[in-house]
Amino acid sequence: MPNQNIIGHLINGQNVREGGRTQDVFNPATGKAEKSVLLADQHTVEAAIASAQAAFPAWRNTPPLKRARVMSNLKHLLEKHADAICQLITAEHGKVLSDAMGELQRGIENIEYASYAPELLKGEHTKNAGPSIDSWSEMQPLGVVAGITPFNFPAMVPLWMWPLAIACGNTFVLKPSERAPSSTLLIAQLALEAGLPPGVLNVVNGDKVAVDTLLNDKRVQAVSFVGSTPVAEYIYATGSAQGKRVQALGGAKNHAIVMPDADIPQAVSALMGAAYGSCGERCMAIPLLVAVGDTTADALIEGLKTEIAKMRVGPGTDSLSDMGPLVTRQHCDKVRGYVEQGVAEGARLVVDGRSIVPPSGYEDGYYLGPCLFDHVKPGMRIYQEEIFGPVLGVVRVESLQEAMDLIDAHEFGNGTCIFTRDGEAARYFTDSIQVGMVGVNVPLPVPVAYHSFGGWKRSLFGDLGAYGPDGVRFYTRRKTITQRWPSAGVREGAVFSFPSSR
Amino acid sequence: MPNQNIIGHLINGQNVREGGRTQDVFNPATGKAEKSVLLADQHTVEAAIASAQAAFPAWRNTPPLKRARVMSNLKHLLEKHADAICQLITAEHGKVLSDAMGELQRGIENIEYASYAPELLKGEHTKNAGPSIDSWSEMQPLGVVAGITPFNFPAMVPLWMWPLAIACGNTFVLKPSERAPSSTLLIAQLALEAGLPPGVLNVVNGDKVAVDTLLNDKRVQAVSFVGSTPVAEYIYATGSAQGKRVQALGGAKNHAIVMPDADIPQAVSALMGAAYGSCGERCMAIPLLVAVGDTTADALIEGLKTEIAKMRVGPGTDSLSDMGPLVTRQHCDKVRGYVEQGVAEGARLVVDGRSIVPPSGYEDGYYLGPCLFDHVKPGMRIYQEEIFGPVLGVVRVESLQEAMDLIDAHEFGNGTCIFTRDGEAARYFTDSIQVGMVGVNVPLPVPVAYHSFGGWKRSLFGDLGAYGPDGVRFYTRRKTITQRWPSAGVREGAVFSFPSSR
Amino acid sequence: MPNQNIIGHLINGQNVREGGRTQDVFNPATGKAEKSVLLADQHTVEAAIASAQAAFPAWRNTPPLKRARVMSNLKHLLEKHADAICQLITAEHGKVLSDAMGELQRGIENIEYASYAPELLKGEHTKNAGPSIDSWSEMQPLGVVAGITPFNFPAMVPLWMWPLAIACGNTFVLKPSERAPSSTLLIAQLALEAGLPPGVLNVVNGDKVAVDTLLNDKRVQAVSFVGSTPVAEYIYATGSAQGKRVQALGGAKNHAIVMPDADIPQAVSALMGAAYGSCGERCMAIPLLVAVGDTTADALIEGLKTEIAKMRVGPGTDSLSDMGPLVTRQHCDKVRGYVEQGVAEGARLVVDGRSIVPPSGYEDGYYLGPCLFDHVKPGMRIYQEEIFGPVLGVVRVESLQEAMDLIDAHEFGNGTCIFTRDGEAARYFTDSIQVGMVGVNVPLPVPVAYHSFGGWKRSLFGDLGAYGPDGVRFYTRRKTITQRWPSAGVREGAVFSFPSSR
Amino acid sequence: MPNQNIIGHLINGQNVREGGRTQDVFNPATGKAEKSVLLADQHTVEAAIASAQAAFPAWRNTPPLKRARVMSNLKHLLEKHADAICQLITAEHGKVLSDAMGELQRGIENIEYASYAPELLKGEHTKNAGPSIDSWSEMQPLGVVAGITPFNFPAMVPLWMWPLAIACGNTFVLKPSERAPSSTLLIAQLALEAGLPPGVLNVVNGDKVAVDTLLNDKRVQAVSFVGSTPVAEYIYATGSAQGKRVQALGGAKNHAIVMPDADIPQAVSALMGAAYGSCGERCMAIPLLVAVGDTTADALIEGLKTEIAKMRVGPGTDSLSDMGPLVTRQHCDKVRGYVEQGVAEGARLVVDGRSIVPPSGYEDGYYLGPCLFDHVKPGMRIYQEEIFGPVLGVVRVESLQEAMDLIDAHEFGNGTCIFTRDGEAARYFTDSIQVGMVGVNVPLPVPVAYHSFGGWKRSLFGDLGAYGPDGVRFYTRRKTITQRWPSAGVREGAVFSFPSSR
Repeated sequence: MPNQNIIGHLINGQNVREGGRTQDVFNPATGKAEKSVLLADQHTVEAAIASAQAAFPAWRNTPPLKRARVMSNLKHLLEKHADAICQLITAEHGKVLSDAMGELQRGIENIEYASYAPELLKGEHTKNAGPSIDSWSEMQPLGVVAGITPFNFPAMVPLWMWPLAIACGNTFVLKPSERAPSSTLLIAQLALEAGLPPGVLNVVNGDKVAVDTLLNDKRVQAVSFVGSTPVAEYIYATGSAQGKRVQALGGAKNHAIVMPDADIPQAVSALMGAAYGSCGERCMAIPLLVAVGDTTADALIEGLKTEIAKMRVGPGTDSLSDMGPLVTRQHCDKVRGYVEQGVAEGARLVVDGRSIVPPSGYEDGYYLGPCLFDHVKPGMRIYQEEIFGPVLGVVRVESLQEAMDLIDAHEFGNGTCIFTRDGEAARYFTDSIQVGMVGVNVPLPVPVAYHSFGGWKRSLFGDLGAYGPDGVRFYTRRKTITQRWPSAGVREGAVFSFPSSR
Repeated sequence: MPNQNIIGHLINGQNVREGGRTQDVFNPATGKAEKSVLLADQHTVEAAIASAQAAFPAWRNTPPLKRARVMSNLKHLLEKHADAICQLITAEHGKVLSDAMGELQRGIENIEYASYAPELLKGEHTKNAGPSIDSWSEMQPLGVVAGITPFNFPAMVPLWMWPLAIACGNTFVLKPSERAPSSTLLIAQLALEAGLPPGVLNVVNGDKVAVDTLLNDKRVQAVSFVGSTPVAEYIYATGSAQGKRVQALGGAKNHAIVMPDADIPQAVSALMGAAYGSCGERCMAIPLLVAVGDTTADALIEGLKTEIAKMRVGPGTDSLSDMGPLVTRQHCDKVRGYVEQGVAEGARLVVDGRSIVPPSGYEDGYYLGPCLFDHVKPGMRIYQEEIFGPVLGVVRVESLQEAMDLIDAHEFGNGTCIFTRDGEAARYFTDSIQVGMVGVNVPLPVPVAYHSFGGWKRSLFGDLGAYGPDGVRFYTRRKTITQRWPSAGVREGAVFSFPSSR
Repeated sequence: MPNQNIIGHLINGQNVREGGRTQDVFNPATGKAEKSVLLADQHTVEAAIASAQAAFPAWRNTPPLKRARVMSNLKHLLEKHADAICQLITAEHGKVLSDAMGELQRGIENIEYASYAPELLKGEHTKNAGPSIDSWSEMQPLGVVAGITPFNFPAMVPLWMWPLAIACGNTFVLKPSERAPSSTLLIAQLALEAGLPPGVLNVVNGDKVAVDTLLNDKRVQAVSFVGSTPVAEYIYATGSAQGKRVQALGGAKNHAIVMPDADIPQAVSALMGAAYGSCGERCMAIPLLVAVGDTTADALIEGLKTEIAKMRVGPGTDSLSDMGPLVTRQHCDKVRGYVEQGVAEGARLVVDGRSIVPPSGYEDGYYLGPCLFDHVKPGMRIYQEEIFGPVLGVVRVESLQEAMDLIDAHEFGNGTCIFTRDGEAARYFTDSIQVGMVGVNVPLPVPVAYHSFGGWKRSLFGDLGAYGPDGVRFYTRRKTITQRWPSAGVREGAVFSFPSSR
Repeated sequence: MPNQNIIGHLINGQNVREGGRTQDVFNPATGKAEKSVLLADQHTVEAAIASAQAAFPAWRNTPPLKRARVMSNLKHLLEKHADAICQLITAEHGKVLSDAMGELQRGIENIEYASYAPELLKGEHTKNAGPSIDSWSEMQPLGVVAGITPFNFPAMVPLWMWPLAIACGNTFVLKPSERAPSSTLLIAQLALEAGLPPGVLNVVNGDKVAVDTLLNDKRVQAVSFVGSTPVAEYIYATGSAQGKRVQALGGAKNHAIVMPDADIPQAVSALMGAAYGSCGERCMAIPLLVAVGDTTADALIEGLKTEIAKMRVGPGTDSLSDMGPLVTRQHCDKVRGYVEQGVAEGARLVVDGRSIVPPSGYEDGYYLGPCLFDHVKPGMRIYQEEIFGPVLGVVRVESLQEAMDLIDAHEFGNGTCIFTRDGEAARYFTDSIQVGMVGVNVPLPVPVAYHSFGGWKRSLFGDLGAYGPDGVRFYTRRKTITQRWPSAGVREGAVFSFPSSR
């Protein structure tokens, strides 16, 4: 039964195992192609859009409380099936199971937020906007909304989008990454089980053909995207030119500043996870560490070296592994190339992860050990570009202001953080820095689900961030109603005698 | 094992079967005392308060998201145990099972709202309230909060209170009605199963001794009460004199206006449930129907008579019963007395429910059939007083304004509604009427869980309504923080060298 | 002194009378060119942008309350100078003075809303997002923002934009319509007098050169536009491709539905102003009237004919004039062409305003009397296209649903309204209609300043409407901060001895 | 013309110079009685209530925007008349003119907030609370509201109350302090000039007779009070027993903690104003300074001594005076008594202000120089009681925790602050301390006007704080409307033909 290993689409509540080319899906831990995924052709994507369009009228009229309850049911189903979902994430993305569980947990938090829909969809009501005139706003759904999501969080990033869009009354077509589609699809199937009517959520696997169909179809009202900056720009410009509302989240190069008054062991511990967790394949990872003062830098390098030495690299399914493989062979090669580049550019490679030897049986996996550079400088490509791998660079500066000037000069503005005990340093940094998500002694300041996610500068195209209050605003369209009931004598008994006159 | 039939307390996570006198709990359908309930003495109530006080510090520091999740778990548990809960409600209160299920459902909606805690507890943050000065509010919990609830909604009314209070970080002592305590207690036990730490929610059964202990104990920060107006006034004055915050919801006498342009069959159908549902033992029931114009009145009377003739009165456990017994023999006698009084006062008794014959085997139950009066007038006691029984009175007026003047002259202002198709009538009525909860073609305008419940005039004592946004405000205490970090040269590198210089 | 009649720019607080070509500014009432306006070249626009950029850092750090007070001062100044402003509007746009005053008044309301800045800029604060972790959002200004505004509301539409943008902490470059720039400029000068620092608000007059400079300059973070749909699309696509946030408000073709139960004289009276006020040169004007039932249609036609016969057309400065001239000769010719087109397409021209004779001394003004068509049908160009002139068409349909289907099939979705007394009709219409601003017995449902303005479909490109809450969101960028202060023993006295130990 | 010096009432827009006993009003700087004030009898207070009651219906129906504009006008009038107002404050209260100006400025900020009424009064609107059922809240005014205010901020505290109450649509009866009524009255007269209709704001001067009349009159719906704790308790218990909503703000004993890492000179400078400003006659003054560590304490004492030596005490009208007289001879004697008491209790009197010699011509003024105690301890009366004079006590502790335990053990919980540079100290302190208004390096953390003022424990009785969002909630009553429009075939053309059928 070769079909079992073909990952298809979910359209109108049905598993669809045809409609497009196929492409291998590899297990990064072994380097083996164990499954294949369908890449939807235009016709298949249009069928998904049509399914969403057909499901819209009934779903928009479903009271928010009922829509919210599907989310509440889904939360409980995901908790029940968490292990199965995480196994799929690890088998296709490579991250260790505890990372997968962390990702799923953050996704579930977005479902919880979507379950607040009755509260989130309240409009503003004004009595007597003018004499006897009332006015209020209704936040109505848009219709069919599309989401396009990356490989690095196959469970979480789709859950940033569709639960909230759907709780707001929209119907959805999701195109997840074709490299890691299985967990995304399983979650969508569980949503049906949780009570989502067929057609409200559709999943199509695919590549640029699918993306362009979504961008160009007039029935799609809005597009949410998370991926690299060049693609984000393409999505934003193309979708906007079609008159759609678009939010496109792109790349990052997040700096962590460590001040001289910081607790260095605490900072080292926090930074290890932020730099090497999930192999650095996170848009909120910390690939750059800006140490204020050489004393600080030396202490950090020392601490990091010690911690790195304890790390174990291996398959994500092994509970002893601290870090798994990179997502694909191509990407692994690219990251290795950056390490070479860094050496060539003059940075000092303090820890070289290239010599890593995978455990027996995993020789063909896409492994790279943690790498640590000292004396990274702004001119270098390893400073400027998003590597998306387990490569941490230390930049040395003399002052907080110098550190902040570096960050503000970078093209990206997704996340950043500072380690300090000082209130003034924290306030000045958080106030002024040109970055959208800022941590104080928090290395990965990903906003919780009831706040919103969004970088600045070339890390986000659009007005509104992902999930949270911004997500609600993005997935709804304001309608403002102004109402007056002119007097026809209803209040006065004498005049109000129409029963007899009828 | 006589113990099995003694209903005790829940203190610090333990079932307590001692500490007070006992009192019989009757089944209104049979008139038999099948169980007894402990009435807590002062010492037992103080133990519950002490338990809540001890649980407070850890619970207040539990992140709102975690507190919210207990509510989410509880919702699923209550859905699972709904039948058992409703059986207990019917066995002690008498209402038919479908009514019990409706009540439980409304209670669950309050749990859902409490599960939005992370959203509901957001404070307001101001950057640059002054130069480099920030200011924000934190809505902190109060500490130990008490709830005192009536017999008529043993599941729902407690769920208006403690889930939200607890989700806000408070700990709770609940004193339910001693006439129908079992479902309340079962729900509290399920809350423990859902993950509530011991001591966060405590239930003490009791009477005035328990109430006064709660009102006078300094550790109790706030009291929520639902019951009759005289007791509400006592609670409000006593609690306030102790410096506590108090909200005390009292009685009602809700009028429904039917306009000549209303759809009479639709209005009749809606009013049947509003008048006779749960035997009229609801503070949002409609005991008075104000018909505008005699044509309207005649048509209503005709319609109501026809519908009443179809009603079956019998034990709540019988799925064929439309209406069950009243709650106690005393109350049944009192309501019958009102019917006699109405006749004596000159109202026309169109349907007399006093001659009802209970089904075989239920001869000792507290049954009274639906009663319908025409030509009820403001001076009469059956107009002025809250009967809390299946007695509907029709008042005839000539105009909307006359109808509204009647309502505004009444001491209560809990709920009211209008039946009309006319926008002007609806707007004028809802704007001007001196009542807190107003329906337009909705006979029981009980606000949904994410709005707030509250009457006006002598139906509510206090500033803030029950549940919803008002509930959040009631169960939290505002703390406003104003912060400035004076400059000590941290931004400038040269100066910021304190590790070495200090 | 020819210079006096040259309308220049306002850059960095200075009146600039050079830097570009000039173009005549005509008085539509007389057809005479009494002034000329500078059309800024790229260099001049860049100087304005540079001025705004330079003013930004200090202005962003000015506390919101102080920024708000400038708005409060400005409100009082505009009230004081209202007559002078309105004279300028009428002299360049042509509308009657009372219309100009109405426009200014709506503009002032937007200034009032901007003066609420301290309230509007509050962020959301979460205590214990995680254990000892707090998180909050700050709505920070974007930097330099541009506004591009149309001729038809030279006072009001700019006031939709810059007061709020500036109150949010941004600095602004405004490019008003080159056909009616004087009132816009005077208001900007008064803003300086009200206390706005130089450079915070800059005005450049110009044409496509100026627009393209604003769209392409990297320093401009966001663009607000109001104008025709083709230009709106160009602005949205071009600005978005540059990575800017853009909101572009386009054209309209607003339908008013009149139901058989409506008060016809009241509807006629309301519709006269909505159709012919300001010569129909409003994006919220009502050029189409959909009558449900022939009886309704006949009564409306009759009523409108009677009212039109009473109208006086003449110069806007004459207090006896009900309607002034159109804005330009070209536009007047275009509108006359539509009237011919309508006749040719088969609509019945009930009132022909083409034969209007202007008052003596105004023979060269751009006058066209009110025109009324009956039997307009969806296929016709006068149905489909935005005429922006005093031409009202009546469409006859059989049912509410048919009327609504027509509206939903039209490309625009700016405003619409219904005249009825019936609550169900109003609710069904407002709920379902695919239009952003909806009136019930209100012919021009322009949202008040504390709600937001925004059409649907091809009437608005972007996520967020103009002014009100959407305006605040558009002119701010969310920054989310996550903060944790790790324990270093501060609470415990013994440990906290760093002054001596460091 | 003795009348000129009699301060009367403002009732229904008229100055009333009769109706009660009279009492001398003294100038604290000279000790002379220069004016007298009427003390209203019950009849006069009832006339004011009746005036407010009569003005209510029209005022409640005035659109919020129009009500807000009166506030905006008033703001400008107060700025214009600021000098006159401040002269009156100083002449009756004694504070220096710059203090009076600061007070007025804070009051004006409350007027600014009241001018946001259209935004603040928005209700919450839910579409589809159930199938085709909508629900929304309207925050309606209460009716007649009373305010009772203290002598120490005769301009500011009344402005905390009535502008917001009135902007919310209520009408008001204000009873200011009979010791300093003139500035309060002048401001009320300016409100009439700003456009407030007669009867909307009434001022009655008086004593307990007036207070009790307000508390017992059924027409008064709510009472706001600021004063001492015993009176606050009386007001709260009495008003609550009458079923009114009441907020009663009482006394304070605010502690400032100074941590060892604080900038001592900066802290000293901030504390001088907080301790001695307005002679310490402020409920947010800092009379207790808790120094963590003896080194800290010694440095503070040294710094304070130096600063105190520079202070000049004299009449508030002299621009060279840093501190004016106390408010009355009796109060001055009482404060001097506390100084003696402190010495007797064993605290060390480092600076003794009792020997102050007033400037020539002011020998009879109520002067007391700044006093400074070291080694104050919890048991002492000067620690426990509110002195309300220029007496600062230093308490020495060993740790932050010890300092916080002291604060939490005190009966009051109005304000407090900490001086530190450390983020952890600030967060732990602000989170845990049982005080309502908390400063970090801000000595007087009075919330800005768009946040709310309110202490904890025995500093506030009631649920809701003064002004800001709590003020809006206090001065409004929630009405929740649930609306459904049953289908009668309006959508379908065939059925909807009632014009013919009627």
